[in-house]
Amino acid sequence: MNLQHGFHFELPDWLITTISEGPQSSLSDEQQMALVIELSRKNIGQGGGPFAALVINRADMSIVGAGVNLVTSRNLSCAHAEIVAISMAQQNLDCYRLSDKGDFQLVTSCEPCAMCFGAIPWSGVNRLLCGASKQHAEAIGFDEGPKLDSWISALEMRGIEVETGILEAEAAAVLAEYAQTTGLLY
Amino acid sequence: MNLQHGFHFELPDWLITTISEGPQSSLSDEQQMALVIELSRKNIGQGGGPFAALVINRADMSIVGAGVNLVTSRNLSCAHAEIVAISMAQQNLDCYRLSDKGDFQLVTSCEPCAMCFGAIPWSGVNRLLCGASKQHAEAIGFDEGPKLDSWISALEMRGIEVETGILEAEAAAVLAEYAQTTGLLY
Repeated sequence: MNLQHGFHFELPDWLITTISEGPQSSLSDEQQMALVIELSRKNIGQGGGPFAALVINRADMSIVGAGVNLVTSRNLSCAHAEIVAISMAQQNLDCYRLSDKGDFQLVTSCEPCAMCFGAIPWSGVNRLLCGASKQHAEAIGFDEGPKLDSWISALEMRGIEVETGILEAEAAAVLAEYAQTTGLLY
Repeated sequence: MNLQHGFHFELPDWLITTISEGPQSSLSDEQQMALVIELSRKNIGQGGGPFAALVINRADMSIVGAGVNLVTSRNLSCAHAEIVAISMAQQNLDCYRLSDKGDFQLVTSCEPCAMCFGAIPWSGVNRLLCGASKQHAEAIGFDEGPKLDSWISALEMRGIEVETGILEAEAAAVLAEYAQTTGLLY
């Protein structure tokens, strides 16, 4: 077959619009998570998975990268929200290791799957905030993959602070809505 | 900051040229691994990491995706060889789950890190072939990340066949060459 030499990866217009309509800096942890939850809910309406993430510069609590799950629309199994947000942050900052540019946190609507967990140490973020848990994702049939039971301490041992359960009920509610309306699992 | 809306991801020209100069189908497992090792060695000469991967359609043993480690040149910590090869295969086949299109194997010059291990079940490949091992990568200072000790059986339990140590000495030799010449670790 003729192999493609590359591809263009584009965020959805509605995601950029949503972010541009609100404050983009001085956001508290809860405000960041509330925005992530809003993005995850909007992504369902656009045919995507119920997951979103942001990368935040902790110096001024500003958004430097955003992502939603784009697996089906972009035909990329790796385009989970966390991978997209990390990649966009690294493109925005021209840097493959964010810790070289300051102090950054990843805010995700749901506990990372096995792949995204493995990606976090390479990204250079120093802090991880999670909304819903693996139990919420698995309760509606999503597969989190083969991940260490001790994933939180494994990140902490690498100097990455982890906080779970931020606006957990609101984040879990989006997963439940997805199960009731769309239900495509991948 | 002004957030970018997307980015173009491009394979290096030399990679496409190298592949186009040899047979692209009816390749034995060892021929596939030999090509992967050649690509991993060439990537060092281009300033990249000593890692390469291919995705192969097992119906005719043809190449449907190729990748090398492009972390530093593309400013993407997720651009490990396996992620690149999986993503390019999915773009070439317009499919986010390769198992929907047939029977595919991932051939990688070195045992996958924690992130790439987690990405394999989502990719839809049914078989994994590895050259060098984690021990070879760690011996020259690369970090494989927090991965299950039982990673092989975790993949096998998901129906993914795993073969390790294909042309292991040749694959490990590239890592040793990298340590002696370049040595940038990430």
